[in-house]
Amino acid sequence: MSQAEKSAPQVGIIMGSQSDLKVMSGAADILEQLGIPFELTIVSAHRTPHRMVEYAESARKKGLKAIIAGAGGAAHLPGMVAALTTLPVIGVPVKSSNSIDGWDSILSILQMPNGVPVATVALNGATNAGLLAAQILGTTNAVVADALEKYRTTQREKVMRSVEQLHRGDIDVD
Amino acid sequence: MSQAEKSAPQVGIIMGSQSDLKVMSGAADILEQLGIPFELTIVSAHRTPHRMVEYAESARKKGLKAIIAGAGGAAHLPGMVAALTTLPVIGVPVKSSNSIDGWDSILSILQMPNGVPVATVALNGATNAGLLAAQILGTTNAVVADALEKYRTTQREKVMRSVEQLHRGDIDVD
Amino acid sequence: MSQAEKSAPQVGIIMGSQSDLKVMSGAADILEQLGIPFELTIVSAHRTPHRMVEYAESARKKGLKAIIAGAGGAAHLPGMVAALTTLPVIGVPVKSSNSIDGWDSILSILQMPNGVPVATVALNGATNAGLLAAQILGTTNAVVADALEKYRTTQREKVMRSVEQLHRGDIDVD
Amino acid sequence: MSQAEKSAPQVGIIMGSQSDLKVMSGAADILEQLGIPFELTIVSAHRTPHRMVEYAESARKKGLKAIIAGAGGAAHLPGMVAALTTLPVIGVPVKSSNSIDGWDSILSILQMPNGVPVATVALNGATNAGLLAAQILGTTNAVVADALEKYRTTQREKVMRSVEQLHRGDIDVD
Amino acid sequence: MSQAEKSAPQVGIIMGSQSDLKVMSGAADILEQLGIPFELTIVSAHRTPHRMVEYAESARKKGLKAIIAGAGGAAHLPGMVAALTTLPVIGVPVKSSNSIDGWDSILSILQMPNGVPVATVALNGATNAGLLAAQILGTTNAVVADALEKYRTTQREKVMRSVEQLHRGDIDVD
Amino acid sequence: MSQAEKSAPQVGIIMGSQSDLKVMSGAADILEQLGIPFELTIVSAHRTPHRMVEYAESARKKGLKAIIAGAGGAAHLPGMVAALTTLPVIGVPVKSSNSIDGWDSILSILQMPNGVPVATVALNGATNAGLLAAQILGTTNAVVADALEKYRTTQREKVMRSVEQLHRGDIDVD
Amino acid sequence: MSQAEKSAPQVGIIMGSQSDLKVMSGAADILEQLGIPFELTIVSAHRTPHRMVEYAESARKKGLKAIIAGAGGAAHLPGMVAALTTLPVIGVPVKSSNSIDGWDSILSILQMPNGVPVATVALNGATNAGLLAAQILGTTNAVVADALEKYRTTQREKVMRSVEQLHRGDIDVD
Amino acid sequence: MSQAEKSAPQVGIIMGSQSDLKVMSGAADILEQLGIPFELTIVSAHRTPHRMVEYAESARKKGLKAIIAGAGGAAHLPGMVAALTTLPVIGVPVKSSNSIDGWDSILSILQMPNGVPVATVALNGATNAGLLAAQILGTTNAVVADALEKYRTTQREKVMRSVEQLHRGDIDVD
Repeated sequence: MSQAEKSAPQVGIIMGSQSDLKVMSGAADILEQLGIPFELTIVSAHRTPHRMVEYAESARKKGLKAIIAGAGGAAHLPGMVAALTTLPVIGVPVKSSNSIDGWDSILSILQMPNGVPVATVALNGATNAGLLAAQILGTTNAVVADALEKYRTTQREKVMRSVEQLHRGDIDVD
Repeated sequence: MSQAEKSAPQVGIIMGSQSDLKVMSGAADILEQLGIPFELTIVSAHRTPHRMVEYAESARKKGLKAIIAGAGGAAHLPGMVAALTTLPVIGVPVKSSNSIDGWDSILSILQMPNGVPVATVALNGATNAGLLAAQILGTTNAVVADALEKYRTTQREKVMRSVEQLHRGDIDVD
Repeated sequence: MSQAEKSAPQVGIIMGSQSDLKVMSGAADILEQLGIPFELTIVSAHRTPHRMVEYAESARKKGLKAIIAGAGGAAHLPGMVAALTTLPVIGVPVKSSNSIDGWDSILSILQMPNGVPVATVALNGATNAGLLAAQILGTTNAVVADALEKYRTTQREKVMRSVEQLHRGDIDVD
Repeated sequence: MSQAEKSAPQVGIIMGSQSDLKVMSGAADILEQLGIPFELTIVSAHRTPHRMVEYAESARKKGLKAIIAGAGGAAHLPGMVAALTTLPVIGVPVKSSNSIDGWDSILSILQMPNGVPVATVALNGATNAGLLAAQILGTTNAVVADALEKYRTTQREKVMRSVEQLHRGDIDVD
Repeated sequence: MSQAEKSAPQVGIIMGSQSDLKVMSGAADILEQLGIPFELTIVSAHRTPHRMVEYAESARKKGLKAIIAGAGGAAHLPGMVAALTTLPVIGVPVKSSNSIDGWDSILSILQMPNGVPVATVALNGATNAGLLAAQILGTTNAVVADALEKYRTTQREKVMRSVEQLHRGDIDVD
Repeated sequence: MSQAEKSAPQVGIIMGSQSDLKVMSGAADILEQLGIPFELTIVSAHRTPHRMVEYAESARKKGLKAIIAGAGGAAHLPGMVAALTTLPVIGVPVKSSNSIDGWDSILSILQMPNGVPVATVALNGATNAGLLAAQILGTTNAVVADALEKYRTTQREKVMRSVEQLHRGDIDVD
Repeated sequence: MSQAEKSAPQVGIIMGSQSDLKVMSGAADILEQLGIPFELTIVSAHRTPHRMVEYAESARKKGLKAIIAGAGGAAHLPGMVAALTTLPVIGVPVKSSNSIDGWDSILSILQMPNGVPVATVALNGATNAGLLAAQILGTTNAVVADALEKYRTTQREKVMRSVEQLHRGDIDVD
Repeated sequence: MSQAEKSAPQVGIIMGSQSDLKVMSGAADILEQLGIPFELTIVSAHRTPHRMVEYAESARKKGLKAIIAGAGGAAHLPGMVAALTTLPVIGVPVKSSNSIDGWDSILSILQMPNGVPVATVALNGATNAGLLAAQILGTTNAVVADALEKYRTTQREKVMRSVEQLHRGDIDVD
């Protein structure tokens, strides 16, 4: 685990079950890459509801700036955490084994009533959840903003390398 | 409001918003008709989460035998209440104005993970939620069981009266 | 097979086809774990309709308190059994091989008309069906109610053990 | 009601509820137009299950050649009737008020398991159900086969009259 | 290939592509089992439209009593054949490799406009298509009607054998 | 009707039913606006299949460069016409009264098998179908290409006028 | 228009068309209520693509901290703006007249590829988009954070007033 | 790579990511087979938006007659390119690994607003995209038109060979 993760966390990554870890580690990876300290743990809305209340209500006090919450099926964790804090909550619909192709995960995270928003990303989109948390920090933190610009440049350069390989014939069209 | 509702309630009917009342009153109507005392109130998972915790955790102690919970959109109330009590929780997906044709309401109530069941009824199916609560009581309460049998008989007789009217030509086919 | 299953059954578990057994055994497992006697058999709405009528109509008389019915595709078993008894019927939509990703199973069990409820659980949610049957018994049976509380505690403790392992670094995030 | 309907019926039209009559009368209309005697009644799978068994099991004996069954929501009538007779059963998914845009009606009629077919027509397609019943009779009844050919010719001629009106400018494009 | 298939066919089985044969052979199997002579060939609506017109328009003349047509994706074969004959056309939605989970196949076969019915069976339901063709013949052919009754009895007996094995403990619940 | 429509048509607009005219006139309007001669008529795949074959097979010979075909429900017209010509066929899924929210119309037009493309536009997107036909002509016709550029400029200017009105406060935000 | 809107904007609200204003004004309303300066304009991805590029690329420089982008149908505005800035972009799927019940709007905003997140809110959820923008500002702006807490309190109090009215009988259950 | 691809291209094939190449090479294959010169490259709407603008705006000038654009998930490439050129743009919804069964890809390409059409083909329908591009060229290029007719003949002959093999018994029905 990197230094970043061990220092005072700015982003909390939580998930409903250990089985979501494979997807949700994508959020941890990108935050680490961008040098943003985070914490990561398991908080189940349905099996540890009091832990969830405690986690959400203490989040701002302990210095978190955003919470990334991933869950699948009838995914109540992101919305319930959003009901218990006024920090931005980023929801990751996880296509878990009990999900109906991800539709339940998406709709039960996205369709929050007026008053309690969840910033929902794509199905299994934990990497984008991490980037969104970084963008939130980057609104006032120039170092993070710079890191995000560099990440974009890297992405663009990767595409351009694919283009060159394709044009040189290094990638076989057929 | 009938006497039934004012006596010691056996069923709790809760809903996420006053706007759900039009649908959810169907549960109250049928319980009243069957002579089962109930209470009815508004408990919002997202706007009053602590009230929800308190309601669910005290339900068994105050004598409730089943909780009927209705909500629409990202409908977390039934599942969260089910996480906070071991009483049977009956979920009514409400096709609220912010719902996507009811799909979000259904999936976010139905697709609960293993360990925390919600007894889900049809979209806007509050009448059936009330009947299901009565059936639960009726497993050990012979008076309720009898009332349910009579209700069934009445239903069957209504169909048969339609049949007779149709055959007599009182209902115009075209 | 345990003692529990052989004693006077309180819950009937039925399914439309032998191929549903793999899913539906989840209901048997949890009932056995909670010490609730049950019976389990195959009743096909479409291939043995008279057996279905007989099963449903005799269920209360032989002492059953709830029926768990699982089926897939155009799944008529739970709803038809519910039409033939006033016991609570718990429907398990099975994602069978002929099902369209489970949507047909869910909708043909969930969307019952007013008057005949089916307590529907998640797709393949047989464990939750068993728990719901136990919750129904637990409304008047303190031993079952206690067993359910213990089950919840066990669930919570499992989550907390995952949390500890994760924090100790025993689970690799990446 | 026409003579046709009063003579010995060859087709039975049944529906789950009087509210389905508005849609299902389309089947009666086309059979009457084609001169095929039919009977029409209400048979509810959920509220009158024994009536349903009796209707289906006596259908062949009383001379019916096909049964048209319409229902909405968790629509079990067509499939259950098909399970109780070896006559061809034509299912009409009705977009009833409690249906989720008709998807539940369609899937719970269409997705029958191997062994028990239901000839499903379009949502609210009662006219086509009547035509299909006529086509079944027309396989061995030349008078009906002729009537069907004439019906087709009439349809084609109606299109051609629209074409002519459009080309003459009698129909305003804008 | 059996005798049945070589004698004067009463049922035509057609499909849009050789790749549909794996599914559509289910119709051939059941017709052979019931002793009903049939023919089976490939007719593509999109690649051999004139062959399709010719096939459909000559079907009644050559003695066919029903046509079973299977296709996947934008599945136009069943509906177009139905437009070109007044024989009953049974449509089998095939979940082909280019289909979106079968939804396109189902909707493009089922949702025919008034005037041109297609008797649609379940996704990949070729066996039921064969049974439905037999049921159509069985309305006037007592031998076929008897064969269908026997088939039903066999189905019921198979379920009862499963029941017995399960009760004897020959099938392991877990 | 304008001069444009009466001169030698370059685009054929066809639709399955007169009831599609309200939607499909959008294609006529835009072609007229762009000065492209077209013809418009009714061709039903299911009620006038031979007319459809004749129309499609003679289209190239009579000088058409593209065919716009609109239909709803099980919409076979665009795909069947595409099977009978090698002209580009533009399909307009119409949300007709018998359509399931347009899904059937879209899928039965879009999901054509390899070998027979249909250029599908949005649900009820007849205007875009007309524009696409113009774009096809515009690949070799500079006058049409210019007209399309002007149309784009007009669109952009309309947006900018809205922007100005909004900024001036002429449009009330609340 | 309030003072808030005229001062140096911290949030940009953009939408694809003037017809989206009715929905999107919900974002303006809540920002105004919370005292957060914003700007609001029309930027069409498809009709003014260069304006979109310019808007997105200059957003950070002119002091915006978040962009709220609403669009319907094939809704490309939020995702394209997100591709052109590293500010957080909040996407509002609008159920516009050309949308298929909102599914197209949701999926084309939500399902962004890794690298370019859009914080998606519920269908027509412009109020929540405004709140989310405020929450982003509130991570470092204590005044906004306080305003958000007060807003939550107000929401909770509104629910409690409904509860009281309901218990007093001021709201009629039936 | 063939001569065709190296000569002055008439069709541009672009895709959002190298991972789309497996699907999109189907368009290259058919164009090569038909002798139509094309170019193929990677243009990402989200990672290289300026490259996309440049590609689309220079397409007509460099002699392209049609652009085939493939993308998956929130697929903005086809629609954005269509917004930046008046050449016909053919959209290929790709069922990429991050797509929800292809629905997001389809809807975000198909549902373009009035004014900016995308000629959408089936999910993963790159072959048909190539054919459609050829049909566009074939409206004024007789050599291409002939090649398309020959392709159709070949398709028809392949079906007829399958028919013969099947009738000879070379293909086993079971």
